[in-house]
Amino acid sequence: MGVDAAVVKAHVRDIPDYPEPGIMFRDITPLLAAPDVFSGAVDALAAPFEREQIDKVVGIEARGFILAAPIALALGAGFVPVRKPGKLPWDTHAHSYELEYGTDTLEVHRDALSADDRVLIVDDVLATGGTALAASDLAEKLGAQVLGISVFIELGALGGRSRLGARATHAVLML
Amino acid sequence: MGVDAAVVKAHVRDIPDYPEPGIMFRDITPLLAAPDVFSGAVDALAAPFEREQIDKVVGIEARGFILAAPIALALGAGFVPVRKPGKLPWDTHAHSYELEYGTDTLEVHRDALSADDRVLIVDDVLATGGTALAASDLAEKLGAQVLGISVFIELGALGGRSRLGARATHAVLML
Repeated sequence: MGVDAAVVKAHVRDIPDYPEPGIMFRDITPLLAAPDVFSGAVDALAAPFEREQIDKVVGIEARGFILAAPIALALGAGFVPVRKPGKLPWDTHAHSYELEYGTDTLEVHRDALSADDRVLIVDDVLATGGTALAASDLAEKLGAQVLGISVFIELGALGGRSRLGARATHAVLML
Repeated sequence: MGVDAAVVKAHVRDIPDYPEPGIMFRDITPLLAAPDVFSGAVDALAAPFEREQIDKVVGIEARGFILAAPIALALGAGFVPVRKPGKLPWDTHAHSYELEYGTDTLEVHRDALSADDRVLIVDDVLATGGTALAASDLAEKLGAQVLGISVFIELGALGGRSRLGARATHAVLML
């Protein structure tokens, strides 16, 4: 299903100086509130990976969950949450990394992925690529194969895509 | 679509003393990882509200997002995130409340709901009902009508349902 880039872009709200001075935050809540646009965006995020036999879709806390869960269902795949430290209740692997404003750590349950799994990583925004790379590293540490990374918005000027190596990176909107 | 309660229950992992001593945490990540069970659970959460002309599905951060987003798409409704303080970038309304272990505050964007909106609240677990009640209060403060609350697991012994008043409360699994 197609999604009109101008319509999608009109449903993203720019918020200057959030969460830090100098950062232009891309707020997707207007898009999520519009059923047809939200549905179209999910379709556009999933479509490039429909024939990749994805086993697990990894969603990155917290906005990534909102997109990754419907994509997992659309692809007939399981959903795996990657979360901030201490948020997952069972045994985890952790990975620390730098992001656009500061540093952060992500965790995944140790039993969430296995060597058989073909994985798609999903997040709302690709900025410097640190978060997506950390999620990929976590998946690969568990033996899984990262087939690709699908993000709603790519902030092209920050060069995140180049850090993701040969992994197929797909963005619905380039800003 | 039907969902087998025994199958669903077998995909919930009990974790004692998380996040606090004495709390038995119900971990739904095994369910989310199993595509058919996840899909069945989403169908079971949405089904009672299919004829209610729901305009917006409110998901409560962070696990609520994972269920609420697919339910919104299934019902042809918009998705509205209710989040912890400081996580929403635009102007918010806030509401503080007591929960099973401590106190917490939730926020919603001021423009997320309007007086025309028929709302379904979604979360993973209904415990004391404080979180669901706070989300309902936020929605009603914006003038919306809360048609119901749909949770995956209801911890019946904690009596949360009785705090939610006349709002239709639906649970897939009673534990």
